[in-house]
Amino acid sequence: MSPEDLADRLQSGDRRALARAITLVESARPDHRARALALLEALPKENETLRIGLSGTPGVGKSTFIESFGLMLTGAGHRVAVLAVDPSSARSGGSILGDKTRMERLSRDPHAFIRPSPAQSELGGVARRTREAATLCAAAGYDVVLIETVGVGQSEVAVAHMTDLFCLLIAPAGGDELQGVKRGIMEIADLVLVNKADGALAAQAERTCADYAGALRLLRRRPQDPEGVPKALTLSATEGTGLDRAWSEMTALAEWRRAEGWRDRRRADQAVHWFEDEVRHALLRRLSQEPVKGAMTDLAARVASGEIAPATAAQELLDHWLGGAPPDR
Amino acid sequence: MSPEDLADRLQSGDRRALARAITLVESARPDHRARALALLEALPKENETLRIGLSGTPGVGKSTFIESFGLMLTGAGHRVAVLAVDPSSARSGGSILGDKTRMERLSRDPHAFIRPSPAQSELGGVARRTREAATLCAAAGYDVVLIETVGVGQSEVAVAHMTDLFCLLIAPAGGDELQGVKRGIMEIADLVLVNKADGALAAQAERTCADYAGALRLLRRRPQDPEGVPKALTLSATEGTGLDRAWSEMTALAEWRRAEGWRDRRRADQAVHWFEDEVRHALLRRLSQEPVKGAMTDLAARVASGEIAPATAAQELLDHWLGGAPPDR
Repeated sequence: MSPEDLADRLQSGDRRALARAITLVESARPDHRARALALLEALPKENETLRIGLSGTPGVGKSTFIESFGLMLTGAGHRVAVLAVDPSSARSGGSILGDKTRMERLSRDPHAFIRPSPAQSELGGVARRTREAATLCAAAGYDVVLIETVGVGQSEVAVAHMTDLFCLLIAPAGGDELQGVKRGIMEIADLVLVNKADGALAAQAERTCADYAGALRLLRRRPQDPEGVPKALTLSATEGTGLDRAWSEMTALAEWRRAEGWRDRRRADQAVHWFEDEVRHALLRRLSQEPVKGAMTDLAARVASGEIAPATAAQELLDHWLGGAPPDR
Repeated sequence: MSPEDLADRLQSGDRRALARAITLVESARPDHRARALALLEALPKENETLRIGLSGTPGVGKSTFIESFGLMLTGAGHRVAVLAVDPSSARSGGSILGDKTRMERLSRDPHAFIRPSPAQSELGGVARRTREAATLCAAAGYDVVLIETVGVGQSEVAVAHMTDLFCLLIAPAGGDELQGVKRGIMEIADLVLVNKADGALAAQAERTCADYAGALRLLRRRPQDPEGVPKALTLSATEGTGLDRAWSEMTALAEWRRAEGWRDRRRADQAVHWFEDEVRHALLRRLSQEPVKGAMTDLAARVASGEIAPATAAQELLDHWLGGAPPDR
């Protein structure tokens, strides 16, 4: 199927075409990559889908939240896609979304589309491909795209770079544990959601929420928040309480940012970020392709034997490959 | 002064020429870089200097150890150079070796040469330049080069990649704290040195040493150790006890590895590692130089406006710059 045909089928709402298109953008084969680029170019520049990033450490109830929240949204007429960025999935073999039984009801919902994290060995590759998958989901008519990630450092930053809103899901905790949340993650969060505000944990959830609200006020004020700081809310994914409030806060924030021009600015910045990321990555990939690969192997042998210094050999390779640019460090 | 003259002066034992040569390899200016490469090429391929990496978290007594150990070596007729890899020095303004009062006696010793960490913003740059500084020190007749680093992750790996022996300096600790030492660092350590084996801590130091020896035996056996596992020793830098034993273990290990071919193999692997590192770094540097820089700025503007997709723009840049290689991911 040509990229243009695939683009048409995908936009008509064909789920199999969407799954196939995502497989195409995930592929490492050069000919697949060329077709993936043609497919992405053939799609209209979408603007109306809301992309929501969701991070939280294991145990905070991410799957339960996504299932309850997703079902609420599809019940209200939305079409919801769920993607994941999990750089550990390549190693562990089991993606955080690999097991659809984690979200059994949502995965059977005809208005929802769930796709596990691409299995790649490095975060950059996983993130680049998930970002493109989100574009495909938007083109396929999903008006809400949730991108889940595990709470382990750099993957949150990558997800924040591909979403309109970044939400941090946390569990009720003692005040001391607040220290454990990385400052970097607090700084990129647009909304903090305290889960498990039910039963015996209800009061503790409210205290945790107040602690986070206080911590968020201590960080520098951000012009992209209507009140200068992100909000913190409680909810219960298992009881389904607070989900509607979370959604109305998300849409209100998204609407405000759109009206104020923040959304377009963020998307433009993100596009430039991914462009630069693609350039760096593709450039380094050339080192493992001919003719550079062979030249590197030859020079490495001369370096290993002591015939030539490492830095001189590097200079020689680049000069030969790229022509007479000035020496580099 | 020409690179060849500087090479001659440096090899004649001129300390100012050595300091100047290190400043040259640390410089970011392209014309300096070209002269630095010429200088490194003009030096003989040294083989007899022993390069020792030393890592340890703040508070374990690294400075005291280096001062005592260095003075013992210069007293025995060695010439000792001390370098540092501290990626935080650029930010904090104060290198771990910036304050020579930390090693006051050693810094006044005519047979010792102390040089603070180069102030650069990223570990890669600091490490590349420190490795070259070690080569200069060796050419200048320093037969022992100690390279210190703070105990924070990646910098140890970089130092292990530029030394013949990598030593981990630790303080006496409870058994539980053993868990806190990163497995990765245990795996690259060639010798574990438990400092502060004096006074009230003497017995605890012995227990810590036994705990580490046990932990080292649990890791996979390494053919580059004569007994299959690295050793653990106690010493007291303040009292000067155990330093001779540490030195004789280092030299015995270095001699054995040299006789068995491990030293040359390690040095060859290291040279290839630094060659590949230089290539990657220099390649990415070209992105911030003309003509690529201007082309990237233009494409970034088109990406920001939505005129072209990030991945397509990246492909266009690379095709234009590097010619018709196959599409890339």
